[in-house]
Amino acid sequence: MSGGIPVYFDCDTGIDDTLALFYLLSRPNHDLVGVGCVSGNVDAAQAARNTLDLLALAGRPDVPVAVGEHDFLTAPYTQGPAHIHGVNGVGDVTLATSGEPVEQDAADLLIALSHQYEGALEVIAVGPLTNLAVAVARDPELASRVARVTIMGGAALAPGNLSPAAEANIGHDPEAAAAVFDAGWPVTMVGLDVTMHHRMTDAERQQLVAAGTPLQTTLAEILDTYFGFYDGILGVRECTLHDPLAVAVATGDAVPSLAPVVKVKVETGSGPARGATVADLRGMYRGHPPVEGARHTVVLTIDRPFGPDMLEALLALKPAS
Amino acid sequence: MSGGIPVYFDCDTGIDDTLALFYLLSRPNHDLVGVGCVSGNVDAAQAARNTLDLLALAGRPDVPVAVGEHDFLTAPYTQGPAHIHGVNGVGDVTLATSGEPVEQDAADLLIALSHQYEGALEVIAVGPLTNLAVAVARDPELASRVARVTIMGGAALAPGNLSPAAEANIGHDPEAAAAVFDAGWPVTMVGLDVTMHHRMTDAERQQLVAAGTPLQTTLAEILDTYFGFYDGILGVRECTLHDPLAVAVATGDAVPSLAPVVKVKVETGSGPARGATVADLRGMYRGHPPVEGARHTVVLTIDRPFGPDMLEALLALKPAS
Repeated sequence: MSGGIPVYFDCDTGIDDTLALFYLLSRPNHDLVGVGCVSGNVDAAQAARNTLDLLALAGRPDVPVAVGEHDFLTAPYTQGPAHIHGVNGVGDVTLATSGEPVEQDAADLLIALSHQYEGALEVIAVGPLTNLAVAVARDPELASRVARVTIMGGAALAPGNLSPAAEANIGHDPEAAAAVFDAGWPVTMVGLDVTMHHRMTDAERQQLVAAGTPLQTTLAEILDTYFGFYDGILGVRECTLHDPLAVAVATGDAVPSLAPVVKVKVETGSGPARGATVADLRGMYRGHPPVEGARHTVVLTIDRPFGPDMLEALLALKPAS
Repeated sequence: MSGGIPVYFDCDTGIDDTLALFYLLSRPNHDLVGVGCVSGNVDAAQAARNTLDLLALAGRPDVPVAVGEHDFLTAPYTQGPAHIHGVNGVGDVTLATSGEPVEQDAADLLIALSHQYEGALEVIAVGPLTNLAVAVARDPELASRVARVTIMGGAALAPGNLSPAAEANIGHDPEAAAAVFDAGWPVTMVGLDVTMHHRMTDAERQQLVAAGTPLQTTLAEILDTYFGFYDGILGVRECTLHDPLAVAVATGDAVPSLAPVVKVKVETGSGPARGATVADLRGMYRGHPPVEGARHTVVLTIDRPFGPDMLEALLALKPAS
């Protein structure tokens, strides 16, 4: 594929990252031109390993994958939540090993792509924002060459998940998130306000099993771990579609019904609100009038359920030929 | 009145404090046994002046009123928002001067009442929580002698008003609020999540004017300033019923439809979330299961509109005889 809208994808692959990657590959008008990996659900090296193997599974071994930051800006990475994503990040399913990461690190890959696709590059980041923050610090002009950054992260009017205030991608590296929101590019925040409400049901997962094809069967197996975790959170055997929903918003396939453009600040102090995305939504009682100088789009509601679209994309995936 | 549930009321009178005070006086099963005043809408001395004059207007000059803290725990009080409450706090309406505050300060009055009504005293606080924090610091056993603290303050899943994160009563003195939430008493938080949705309309205010009686006419005049401010916030000429709604929750007249008992921490750092009430509402996706050791009730919804009840209470008020 080529000639589509170029996308740099930053991820910590991860089960919902897996869904997000596959969903992105399924979009006909978008062209995945590079992937950067960061520590979060697993460490950056394992995330790159998973991403390479998944890209090969999907017949896209041509996409460059870069290992990014192992540690967060102000804290070392310790370990991922194995009870959510499995020890290896893909539900402890063993994937065929395929390909190697590029030599550049993720920040350099992003910077290079921002030159190659100046003004057109879309950045979608679904893990901690460490790679993006490092890239912005390395090249302060980066923001001006990127069309838009869409993140899965944050919680504006919803509770956090890592802590009462912090969503995990922001909470793991609040300083990086602050740098990303403060950089001059437009940022679209697809946070827990919406992602908690868009889910894949176990019945939908069973359709992957029923398909009987190796790729879909593998996906259903990977999802099993994730469904097990969410059973305890949601009280029902289904999973939230955090990362793929952010991709769908970025590609225009999921259309927000409410997404005011406001100013967002990330709390980086050491108190109970550390990692909170403080969105200035005080205009909500007057229909969110325009805010001068604001460039943070906070997605608050998406009416159309995304689960069926996600399933359709997964069912349509063809294995590598 | 006597023999009712004893209430200590802490306020920064203030237009909605005025409504709250009158609403409280109208409750047949509750007995206002003391008022402490704190700086906020106006300074503590002016708040006491207003409270004394309003109590006299309502025929209750017997209620002891104490001046409390002029300054916040970590910052000096500068001035109140005259554009909201008028320079004098009661919409720049001149009230007849009546009575003098007691010699005790507010914290000592609260402590004395907690002994007098040990185990039964209800505390309702609708201003910054400085007086309560000073009382807790002065007498660490205070919390064990109070039945419950109900505050108007905070914002759990709603934006702040003083800042994007902070509701004004908490944001003016976050350290005091933290001390109050951390003390061992049960706290019910009636914050912007609900108070922004319960309003008095201008048509209701006109009914006070139409009553033609001096007390109701004075109230309508006081409210005029408040309506003017809220026109700019709400885009319609009506006012929110912040403080009286907290009283109505405390007295049981406003019954929450959703009010989980969780843990709340107040952010006291210097970042963008300073003054946020961080409520651990992560159980919301499972119907808010009980939280061990939690004693903070966070009122999230009240279905029955409170405006008509507020109006009825004001129309029934009799002037001092």
